Amino acid sequence: MHLAEHTTTTAAERLADVEVAVLPVGSTEQHGPALPLGTDFTVAAAFAETVADRDDTVVLPTLPVGVSEHHRQFHGTLWTSPETFEAYVTETLEGIASHGVEKAVVVNGHGGNTGALDRTARRLRERETAFAPTWNWWESVSELSGELFETEGGHAGPAETSVVLEVAPALVREDALAEAGEGAPDGWGSTVHGAAVGFDTIDFTPTGAVGDPTEGSADAGERLFEAAAAELDTLVDWLCEQPFESLLPREHVGNSP
Amino acid sequence: MHLAEHTTTTAAERLADVEVAVLPVGSTEQHGPALPLGTDFTVAAAFAETVADRDDTVVLPTLPVGVSEHHRQFHGTLWTSPETFEAYVTETLEGIASHGVEKAVVVNGHGGNTGALDRTARRLRERETAFAPTWNWWESVSELSGELFETEGGHAGPAETSVVLEVAPALVREDALAEAGEGAPDGWGSTVHGAAVGFDTIDFTPTGAVGDPTEGSADAGERLFEAAAAELDTLVDWLCEQPFESLLPREHVGNSP
Amino acid sequence: MHLAEHTTTTAAERLADVEVAVLPVGSTEQHGPALPLGTDFTVAAAFAETVADRDDTVVLPTLPVGVSEHHRQFHGTLWTSPETFEAYVTETLEGIASHGVEKAVVVNGHGGNTGALDRTARRLRERETAFAPTWNWWESVSELSGELFETEGGHAGPAETSVVLEVAPALVREDALAEAGEGAPDGWGSTVHGAAVGFDTIDFTPTGAVGDPTEGSADAGERLFEAAAAELDTLVDWLCEQPFESLLPREHVGNSP
Amino acid sequence: MHLAEHTTTTAAERLADVEVAVLPVGSTEQHGPALPLGTDFTVAAAFAETVADRDDTVVLPTLPVGVSEHHRQFHGTLWTSPETFEAYVTETLEGIASHGVEKAVVVNGHGGNTGALDRTARRLRERETAFAPTWNWWESVSELSGELFETEGGHAGPAETSVVLEVAPALVREDALAEAGEGAPDGWGSTVHGAAVGFDTIDFTPTGAVGDPTEGSADAGERLFEAAAAELDTLVDWLCEQPFESLLPREHVGNSP
Amino acid sequence: MHLAEHTTTTAAERLADVEVAVLPVGSTEQHGPALPLGTDFTVAAAFAETVADRDDTVVLPTLPVGVSEHHRQFHGTLWTSPETFEAYVTETLEGIASHGVEKAVVVNGHGGNTGALDRTARRLRERETAFAPTWNWWESVSELSGELFETEGGHAGPAETSVVLEVAPALVREDALAEAGEGAPDGWGSTVHGAAVGFDTIDFTPTGAVGDPTEGSADAGERLFEAAAAELDTLVDWLCEQPFESLLPREHVGNSP
Amino acid sequence: MHLAEHTTTTAAERLADVEVAVLPVGSTEQHGPALPLGTDFTVAAAFAETVADRDDTVVLPTLPVGVSEHHRQFHGTLWTSPETFEAYVTETLEGIASHGVEKAVVVNGHGGNTGALDRTARRLRERETAFAPTWNWWESVSELSGELFETEGGHAGPAETSVVLEVAPALVREDALAEAGEGAPDGWGSTVHGAAVGFDTIDFTPTGAVGDPTEGSADAGERLFEAAAAELDTLVDWLCEQPFESLLPREHVGNSP
Repeated sequence: MHLAEHTTTTAAERLADVEVAVLPVGSTEQHGPALPLGTDFTVAAAFAETVADRDDTVVLPTLPVGVSEHHRQFHGTLWTSPETFEAYVTETLEGIASHGVEKAVVVNGHGGNTGALDRTARRLRERETAFAPTWNWWESVSELSGELFETEGGHAGPAETSVVLEVAPALVREDALAEAGEGAPDGWGSTVHGAAVGFDTIDFTPTGAVGDPTEGSADAGERLFEAAAAELDTLVDWLCEQPFESLLPREHVGNSP
Repeated sequence: MHLAEHTTTTAAERLADVEVAVLPVGSTEQHGPALPLGTDFTVAAAFAETVADRDDTVVLPTLPVGVSEHHRQFHGTLWTSPETFEAYVTETLEGIASHGVEKAVVVNGHGGNTGALDRTARRLRERETAFAPTWNWWESVSELSGELFETEGGHAGPAETSVVLEVAPALVREDALAEAGEGAPDGWGSTVHGAAVGFDTIDFTPTGAVGDPTEGSADAGERLFEAAAAELDTLVDWLCEQPFESLLPREHVGNSP
Repeated sequence: MHLAEHTTTTAAERLADVEVAVLPVGSTEQHGPALPLGTDFTVAAAFAETVADRDDTVVLPTLPVGVSEHHRQFHGTLWTSPETFEAYVTETLEGIASHGVEKAVVVNGHGGNTGALDRTARRLRERETAFAPTWNWWESVSELSGELFETEGGHAGPAETSVVLEVAPALVREDALAEAGEGAPDGWGSTVHGAAVGFDTIDFTPTGAVGDPTEGSADAGERLFEAAAAELDTLVDWLCEQPFESLLPREHVGNSP
Repeated sequence: MHLAEHTTTTAAERLADVEVAVLPVGSTEQHGPALPLGTDFTVAAAFAETVADRDDTVVLPTLPVGVSEHHRQFHGTLWTSPETFEAYVTETLEGIASHGVEKAVVVNGHGGNTGALDRTARRLRERETAFAPTWNWWESVSELSGELFETEGGHAGPAETSVVLEVAPALVREDALAEAGEGAPDGWGSTVHGAAVGFDTIDFTPTGAVGDPTEGSADAGERLFEAAAAELDTLVDWLCEQPFESLLPREHVGNSP
Repeated sequence: MHLAEHTTTTAAERLADVEVAVLPVGSTEQHGPALPLGTDFTVAAAFAETVADRDDTVVLPTLPVGVSEHHRQFHGTLWTSPETFEAYVTETLEGIASHGVEKAVVVNGHGGNTGALDRTARRLRERETAFAPTWNWWESVSELSGELFETEGGHAGPAETSVVLEVAPALVREDALAEAGEGAPDGWGSTVHGAAVGFDTIDFTPTGAVGDPTEGSADAGERLFEAAAAELDTLVDWLCEQPFESLLPREHVGNSP
Repeated sequence: MHLAEHTTTTAAERLADVEVAVLPVGSTEQHGPALPLGTDFTVAAAFAETVADRDDTVVLPTLPVGVSEHHRQFHGTLWTSPETFEAYVTETLEGIASHGVEKAVVVNGHGGNTGALDRTARRLRERETAFAPTWNWWESVSELSGELFETEGGHAGPAETSVVLEVAPALVREDALAEAGEGAPDGWGSTVHGAAVGFDTIDFTPTGAVGDPTEGSADAGERLFEAAAAELDTLVDWLCEQPFESLLPREHVGNSP
């Protein structure tokens, strides 16, 4: 069910059977000249959609602005501080927990959000409000990505390009894919003798992309999307099976204090 | 233009002509047994859509969770603190301002957001970052509402019901409209000798609605929507005409300090 | 009783019978050329005084600086942020609650304070510390104001001028009342097609006043003051009668969660 | 001049000549069985009054609640956190500085406020907003106190009792002075081998007083009050003479960085 | 025991017998031309070492940066805000309390830290997390200091110089002691008619020292150090003897509320 | 140079030549039954020592408590929130920058600190206060680790064990190394279908260690330490060569805004 489409009374009936809230989050940020600024939240929403028909889930509205300050030199990028994003996500999950849904998956489309989401998850669990791990689609299919593409890629790279070709093909400017890859590095960031010194994307990629986007394809996108969606589905299964108490923080070791 | 559908490079071209950012915000909260939980952000997004085709606007993604703690006893309501909502909106508007769009309209679908949005607007102006007034659709057509309906209404009342019938008819449970009005008060809140003592919606309405929703109709919705959309369009015209400097805070009176 | 005039031991005896704390709050801000900067807290203190002789009340010291940044361009205006004012009021009320007085009325003389006071009241109730609604004198007598004056007025307008003539006549510069009304708008604020665009008082009134202050009079002030004081007295009666538990937040609807 | 008694226009004229703002602050807290809960702000206001007639000062409204949590076990004590008190004072002083009065004296009646006031003063100076030292009346006449009384005293002790007898004799319960001294320690606090271990007043004094209040007298109060008032007057003189720039933070030593 | 030198399993065994955590804190700040920037944390660590061999103590790692902004004009001074320092200390003590050690002594080497440490102690006690008074070595031996030296001294003065000569003689530039005393005032701060107006050290001492450092000596240092260490040892004894419950905040006086 | 060992005057001379501040940070947290709780800050300090003799560096005092809440169930673990740790580090680096050293390396011994350190680095650079990348020793020698050991390891695993055997052999309980590896997983964390669900260390390792510590050796430690120290040295070289301006954030792309 999509929470926003229900009334409070029909929601009441349905939420009684729901085990897991699904919260899609992403960002609005540059994805090079070929992919849309809304890539991350669009992809997250598409994955959330794949588990929306289950009786044991409730899909919350998509949160579209995330932790993207490092892309700010590129036109159109929006961002919030990590603290604000963490608060917005945390309070949203506290709300659904107040109606009895204490397990959640944050379906995340943007790597820059993960630090804040980790703090959200830790603190909700610590306070015994909710158990809400983050699910990053690209991590669930990293092996398949490795098989499909030669360059490691990442932000706006072959895997992400492929997935957008699957979920929102009309928004991909395919004629700009080659341009996106020009001068783009193989992997994320810029490191000098063990220290990450490239704090902003513009420090290490002139186009905003990482990896060779022309490696991406609609076919690869379909395969990645289906594989990741299957992982998400199984993750939701697993969460449904866990009693909430079993997900709470463990006790201090030993007899003390 | 919808920001999220552009790439950074096509956004760059278009933003050069843009004068006004349009940010739809709402909430996910109970609207009684007949209207969807997503009413407020759905309506806000619909209004934003009406000015999306102008060359001088950019529509930002919709922010779907707002200041709704006072509805929390009803199933499905989500909320953030006013401080978090203010921060999320403020930082989003700072982002678009960093790309040169320093005027904005926050198209708001939820009365509970206005305190936070007023602070956002005041502080962005004070820092000379942006001029971003809030536009509440119901305030732009209060006269017409008065003509159309007998009960004053308000939250989930006749005017709001009508507008949802216009913008998302499939989400209205028309057979529950009569139930929504049962026991609902005519106006918002509960007052004792000059003091507002009903802090939560549940303190003064058993169904969550205010006013008689059965007064609402698709026809009334069409009239309200078109009238309000015209107001919004004219507001955007007005903003486009104002030089940014003329919108900044006025100087201290007199010669000192 | 006035708390500050008692010693801790005489306070102990008296507080045992007290049901309601009365906290006068206002601001120090421009009220045009005719009314004193201290208008709002002076009027609040005067209203608090009217219920000070009851055995079931304790009057706390007056808090004289409030949320008045929107008047800052006029000489003499002081202000705090809404967050600071909220904290100062909230902690003051937490203090008196710690001595067993868990019901309170915030007697407020300044409209700009209401957002912060609403958050104070909501949060104190939510935490079950206190039930502390705001009482705005002008809202308790809005009908009478409508009868007495032709212009709607508001800040430094006919009703407020009248009440200051009643409670602190020596501080009114009657010869400046006409000047105060010159160019003053009838009502508060400045709106463009449904959006409030005048964030500071100076944006819409050259003198700082709203409405025609020359409509005010000592007679009108006496009538308004007595009528409002009677409302306050009845509000205190009502609060005394309510068991504290009955004032706490209501439960979630339905059986869940 | 008292700021609150002026209108914005008469304030504008007078503030042109003003050099120093005078802000009385105190607390509402137990002062034993004999002295009123409002002792600290009453005394502060009385001292502020002594410099109110100067042409070069403006007296701001009295802030009546301070940092008094350590007295909270005694009936009637109110308090705010140090952070809230600091913010309330700081923002009040920023307001008067915005009208051109950048020098101030915080006339303080409560020792517990000094940590917060020191941070206020430091930060206002650091930001070059204002120079606003704290003036504690008891520190300005510590020598005279030593001559007048045998016990060192302090909170609600002989010196404070004397000063209240001078400024608000009607509020002193003289018949309770002996009781106040029963079991009261000579000096503030409780120390164990170099560590202060009495965090609350109740940890070291059963009545709330420190020192022997019966040593106090109206005569001693008159002497102390006049001596301290003379010190305050001279301090204001000194502040008037200092160019604001000479009061700003000093540069880093040496040529670097 | 030094916590950091144990493994988690050997710590578990030892902590079972521990009553008191010892946390050395200081600062890194100018101490004039003769004493090292690390004086305050070095001395604190040395005192903590004197009680490290007891079975009932655990020494935590030394926190080396404190509240020293008032020394910032002198090369090499580091500092945090009082709020940050308070948080860092508080959370460190909450950590050790979570393992069952709820009594602590903060062995402090820097006067500027005391305000923050007092708040730490009060708040940990208020929440019943820990009882953690601050121990300032110089306060435990103030009488002896008075006997040993003619000038009152203080920061980088005779007593501190002596103690550094005892605990870290290699870091004292004895040939600079005379220079340190040139122009140094006898006591801390700068006062005008009862108001402290010297907010930074540089406002009242050209060298950064207070008092005549040439009065200091290794002999005096030995005496001071031993005397203070004996006080600390006795303080730890005292803490060991107190049941934790007896150290918690006292109840409200009387029967109410 | 070690900052803390200099006086303000000798520091002034030396800092004139310094290009890079070196700030060792770690944590005090469980490292299984064989490694000391102080492992992370001890190792960080040892690496900082290797560049302390350069004329162009200044080594700041070691910050010993970090972001380790996820180890809290194991005896002896201390921690601060990420926000507090970020503030403590940031303000420390602002201090040294105020004396003219605007480039820094944070030598970090604890993976859990990296999120906070990344925010520190980004914000200091954004405000143009300092350029302060984090250097994680294990990342600078990840290739060598891969060659030396079969298990990937990580926290308290073979590489860390080896390095502690190099820098603080007396603190390693070698007889407990086998026990440490019992039941320890090969890699960090616990993942279910793409989601990290093990928020605390105790969720996935019974001993607190990750990897097989018995693979570690003093020889491997020496090789790792020297290799990493060489990387750090080269990183400092690189930082010395960069003009500060070249390290500041890049401009917005294109001509606008």
